[in-house]
Amino acid sequence: MAGGKYTEKHAQSGLKTKLPKLETFPSQFPNYEITISYPEFTSICPKTGLPDFGSIHLKYMPNQKCLELKALKMYMLAYRDVGIFYENVVNRVLQDLVKASDPMWMVVKGVFNARGGMLGIAQAQYGKVPTNFSFPSELK
Amino acid sequence: MAGGKYTEKHAQSGLKTKLPKLETFPSQFPNYEITISYPEFTSICPKTGLPDFGSIHLKYMPNQKCLELKALKMYMLAYRDVGIFYENVVNRVLQDLVKASDPMWMVVKGVFNARGGMLGIAQAQYGKVPTNFSFPSELK
Amino acid sequence: MAGGKYTEKHAQSGLKTKLPKLETFPSQFPNYEITISYPEFTSICPKTGLPDFGSIHLKYMPNQKCLELKALKMYMLAYRDVGIFYENVVNRVLQDLVKASDPMWMVVKGVFNARGGMLGIAQAQYGKVPTNFSFPSELK
Amino acid sequence: MAGGKYTEKHAQSGLKTKLPKLETFPSQFPNYEITISYPEFTSICPKTGLPDFGSIHLKYMPNQKCLELKALKMYMLAYRDVGIFYENVVNRVLQDLVKASDPMWMVVKGVFNARGGMLGIAQAQYGKVPTNFSFPSELK
Amino acid sequence: MAGGKYTEKHAQSGLKTKLPKLETFPSQFPNYEITISYPEFTSICPKTGLPDFGSIHLKYMPNQKCLELKALKMYMLAYRDVGIFYENVVNRVLQDLVKASDPMWMVVKGVFNARGGMLGIAQAQYGKVPTNFSFPSELK
Amino acid sequence: MAGGKYTEKHAQSGLKTKLPKLETFPSQFPNYEITISYPEFTSICPKTGLPDFGSIHLKYMPNQKCLELKALKMYMLAYRDVGIFYENVVNRVLQDLVKASDPMWMVVKGVFNARGGMLGIAQAQYGKVPTNFSFPSELK
Amino acid sequence: MAGGKYTEKHAQSGLKTKLPKLETFPSQFPNYEITISYPEFTSICPKTGLPDFGSIHLKYMPNQKCLELKALKMYMLAYRDVGIFYENVVNRVLQDLVKASDPMWMVVKGVFNARGGMLGIAQAQYGKVPTNFSFPSELK
Amino acid sequence: MAGGKYTEKHAQSGLKTKLPKLETFPSQFPNYEITISYPEFTSICPKTGLPDFGSIHLKYMPNQKCLELKALKMYMLAYRDVGIFYENVVNRVLQDLVKASDPMWMVVKGVFNARGGMLGIAQAQYGKVPTNFSFPSELK
Amino acid sequence: MAGGKYTEKHAQSGLKTKLPKLETFPSQFPNYEITISYPEFTSICPKTGLPDFGSIHLKYMPNQKCLELKALKMYMLAYRDVGIFYENVVNRVLQDLVKASDPMWMVVKGVFNARGGMLGIAQAQYGKVPTNFSFPSELK
Amino acid sequence: MAGGKYTEKHAQSGLKTKLPKLETFPSQFPNYEITISYPEFTSICPKTGLPDFGSIHLKYMPNQKCLELKALKMYMLAYRDVGIFYENVVNRVLQDLVKASDPMWMVVKGVFNARGGMLGIAQAQYGKVPTNFSFPSELK
Repeated sequence: MAGGKYTEKHAQSGLKTKLPKLETFPSQFPNYEITISYPEFTSICPKTGLPDFGSIHLKYMPNQKCLELKALKMYMLAYRDVGIFYENVVNRVLQDLVKASDPMWMVVKGVFNARGGMLGIAQAQYGKVPTNFSFPSELK
Repeated sequence: MAGGKYTEKHAQSGLKTKLPKLETFPSQFPNYEITISYPEFTSICPKTGLPDFGSIHLKYMPNQKCLELKALKMYMLAYRDVGIFYENVVNRVLQDLVKASDPMWMVVKGVFNARGGMLGIAQAQYGKVPTNFSFPSELK
Repeated sequence: MAGGKYTEKHAQSGLKTKLPKLETFPSQFPNYEITISYPEFTSICPKTGLPDFGSIHLKYMPNQKCLELKALKMYMLAYRDVGIFYENVVNRVLQDLVKASDPMWMVVKGVFNARGGMLGIAQAQYGKVPTNFSFPSELK
Repeated sequence: MAGGKYTEKHAQSGLKTKLPKLETFPSQFPNYEITISYPEFTSICPKTGLPDFGSIHLKYMPNQKCLELKALKMYMLAYRDVGIFYENVVNRVLQDLVKASDPMWMVVKGVFNARGGMLGIAQAQYGKVPTNFSFPSELK
Repeated sequence: MAGGKYTEKHAQSGLKTKLPKLETFPSQFPNYEITISYPEFTSICPKTGLPDFGSIHLKYMPNQKCLELKALKMYMLAYRDVGIFYENVVNRVLQDLVKASDPMWMVVKGVFNARGGMLGIAQAQYGKVPTNFSFPSELK
Repeated sequence: MAGGKYTEKHAQSGLKTKLPKLETFPSQFPNYEITISYPEFTSICPKTGLPDFGSIHLKYMPNQKCLELKALKMYMLAYRDVGIFYENVVNRVLQDLVKASDPMWMVVKGVFNARGGMLGIAQAQYGKVPTNFSFPSELK
Repeated sequence: MAGGKYTEKHAQSGLKTKLPKLETFPSQFPNYEITISYPEFTSICPKTGLPDFGSIHLKYMPNQKCLELKALKMYMLAYRDVGIFYENVVNRVLQDLVKASDPMWMVVKGVFNARGGMLGIAQAQYGKVPTNFSFPSELK
Repeated sequence: MAGGKYTEKHAQSGLKTKLPKLETFPSQFPNYEITISYPEFTSICPKTGLPDFGSIHLKYMPNQKCLELKALKMYMLAYRDVGIFYENVVNRVLQDLVKASDPMWMVVKGVFNARGGMLGIAQAQYGKVPTNFSFPSELK
Repeated sequence: MAGGKYTEKHAQSGLKTKLPKLETFPSQFPNYEITISYPEFTSICPKTGLPDFGSIHLKYMPNQKCLELKALKMYMLAYRDVGIFYENVVNRVLQDLVKASDPMWMVVKGVFNARGGMLGIAQAQYGKVPTNFSFPSELK
Repeated sequence: MAGGKYTEKHAQSGLKTKLPKLETFPSQFPNYEITISYPEFTSICPKTGLPDFGSIHLKYMPNQKCLELKALKMYMLAYRDVGIFYENVVNRVLQDLVKASDPMWMVVKGVFNARGGMLGIAQAQYGKVPTNFSFPSELK
């Protein structure tokens, strides 16, 4: 928690950084749900320059395309050197994944390790998410 | 994660492989729910040739027929040598079990061990699943 | 898992076996819920002759009568020597308890130890069960 | 589990026993919820004379008055020498607390240690409890 | 639990105490949820003068402004020397945070360590909270 | 935690109170260990008059005699109305059980619920306890 | 807990009951340890006639012979109808298994469900058990 | 983690601060062990001025005197406003408690909440601590 | 558990099957310990032809050579089609790994899923294993 | 797990990389133990170029000097961009910390996330570590 003011530049940091291309493959079935959990997410706090750590969970109903896992992993890994706040991580990941896979709906959640004793979680969604949506209990 | 492109052939692998016959017995009661959990599922990744591991959970309301457990186990065991993606496992299991038992509704969920640090879960459903559906908390 | 076919006789085994009488006492209050959990249930598989083990959970809203616990325990204990499939256990328990206590509604759930690596759970219900019904989280 | 019949006297035991006075203080805010958990509840089984043990959880939305904790504790402690069935504990606690604090709504749940291998839970409610009501997950 | 009566002065203690200023930064995205958990909350019981300990969890959907974490931490830390009941902690935190950040909706929950064997939890909310609201399961 | 000084009378309270007789039966085998856990222990704090709660665990190697469980339970139950500090509970239980059963060795441990935020545990032993002694991990 | 005295006949019940034959196969390696856990043990209390339930764990170093699992299971199952105290179960199992397999050393532990609120565990051993012996942590 | 150098003054901070008097009562038995756990410890980091939080566990064998719990709690509470490093907390607590109670031996352990992502634990001991010493598994 | 006798051929099955070559790399440091856990082990029961599942844990102190992980994984994977009893798995893995890496000492443990309700664990060791050896608590 | 051979260059990667300076402060007490746990360790696999993640635990008895936590954190953070195998991480951390702080003894343990389904742990030690050494159970 370095001193100094929190600026607009901090707030927008990492939103435009170029990241690896996401890939998809054609879904073979209609109307089912996929959950992917990536517990080794790390990025850089734009204000302190120190690393943040967390888990990114995502759940979606594919339309025509499923996200290819290896490319998704490379995309996630690339945040390692990106300065970006965790609220923005979650929103940008949603935006990028929706654009790549055009799902029926998608939810992205980020659970970040405590900093200064405070744990932060953010969740964003796209499309008509079911009213009884929840992440599978297997995700911790 | 072997190199090379992800092809249509990969994507459809295992969807037509012949599997052991499922059997049923006549349900003695109307209007109840059965959950079966098979934590020793293993198949082969069609892209890398390496084994995948996971748990398959299923819940259904029988109509006239209940799935016979021993035949179901033999059916599940047979995936051991089948190259098939886990999204397809879940959808094919649902298709095959619905065809064999003609249930009021059925949900199949697959929880697969992490690969490359990413955990994958897929869930598919058939029929008019109750709006407050969930798997029993006993399934960890 | 002894060999041989699964017959109608297997499927109906234990449904008519005489069991100890259930008793009740007059409920002193309207409109509340009772949950009872019996983790030491054991019966006999009618096909293999080997014992099955499980937990029986039940929740109900009494109308005029509450189930007396000691008689209920004797009723549950009596399955120890009964050959009956677990789907039938759950349905018969529900039938017998409803008949004895005439509740507003009742749910019976049986969670049975894995056999051949497969865990089985069955749940049956009577009456107008609340839409947000669940068993208390204290039941594991 | 001493022998003998279960009588009407047993069934009503403890319902009229005088207990310490509950106290309240004026709520400073509208429209919020309070949960109190008392894990050291003990009373006497009116049939066997042996002690019962359990946890009493309660959740309510205050109207004008909040329950004062020290008096509530004294009230709970006083059950130590009262012969009363656990179904009646939960209903009487609800009745007494509602009378003392006149809440918007209240739910009282009692989770009692296993007797004869059977775990018992009872839950009673007053007023217009929210449809998605649940006790906080912090209560084990 | 010192003796003496519980007065109006006790009941209102800490409601007007000056606390550090909360700060915000402009939200970069619409329509997502933020959860913050602060497990090191401590304040002073106005009646006994002894410290209380607990966790404060909050979840909100930002409108234009996100709560800045460092200022929020300083705000939380400042309760260390404030005499205030835990019901009031939760309501005041909600009031102050809503005033500072003008969210779409917000929920504040406080889980306080047992005193005299009784665990206390309070939860307050502002705005149109979703009907299926819950805190993330990661908050233990 | 009522005020006033802690006197010699408090310190010795309950050490001479008459308790139900312990019984034994002849051990049928040499050289084995028995562990008994009683999680529903309650007594009275001699200073405050308020109840204490805890678990009593004991492990011993019988010589000629095993402790009979029903009499042991009645002995434990009798502390319900005895004013005695928990350090003394553990030592007196050890003394009484050793006298009744004359074991090769015995260890008694009491784990008591927190009071004023402090958890207390006491452990006493008799005879030549094995150097690698521990209570079974099944005791929580 | 039926009334009446605890007799010598009770104390020796089940020690001579004929049980299924244990079988062995030749160990292929020297100097290693085998642990077997059987969580579905049930027998009959010779005093009350009610069933007891528990887990039997055993660990041994084979000399020339390993215990064959299927025969061991049939042996364990046969206690289902035997009236025997749990202290005797553990000692008899040890005796029978040592006789059948002549191990370097063996430890047998029985963990039995609570009766009357008291949990009982017994452990017996044969031969020169290693000084740092413990059961694997995987056994709960 | 405020900037600046770590000075000798920081390193010795809090070692001489006057704290409330510890009290004792005469032990009624020889040769047993007492464990006390205080999970609500808080002090001030002398370098940053921010609060630290942790649990203090202590185990000792009394000689003539037992530590009186209420005075011990007041002693622990008094660290709330003391600037002192956690390594020094543990050593000073040991020193003060040994001086007050003159035990056969004593071990003090402090488990402190993570700061900057690093968890710190310190443990100090006095006298001839048993070679197989450990804190009871209940402290966790 | 198919019928028929357990033969010498069963007992030795899989002991000579050719498996992939293990590889090593030169250890850069003396005198430290490495633990590797492989939770996805599967082989075939030589008697029933059905798959077994389990976890293989190994801990060793390298002498000059460390086991290369990718080759070790290929070695473990190759058991997928080998008929071999789990006692033999553990001993053969030890033998092969010792031969390949010539360690100061090594311990191999296999924890196998329950079959017929019985859980089996085997552990074998080579060289002068430390007297206080244990597997790290992180392994489950 | 990229292809190609594992070379000497891989094996020594990261052993000489310059890392931030560790700092110490004078210990104020003799003869106590400090444990530090850093759960956010990450480095780069020298063979695949992909990140590794893990926890580093260390325990030591200071001689004259204690490790300063902020510098230790900066030292740990610096591995983020270092290509080094996890066996070498543990040994190098031990070497560097011993050199900086000259402790009586020290143990360093690294627990690394699974790769290819295999979990790896390494532990190295310096000096005369107590024979009953273990890491505190708080380090899960």
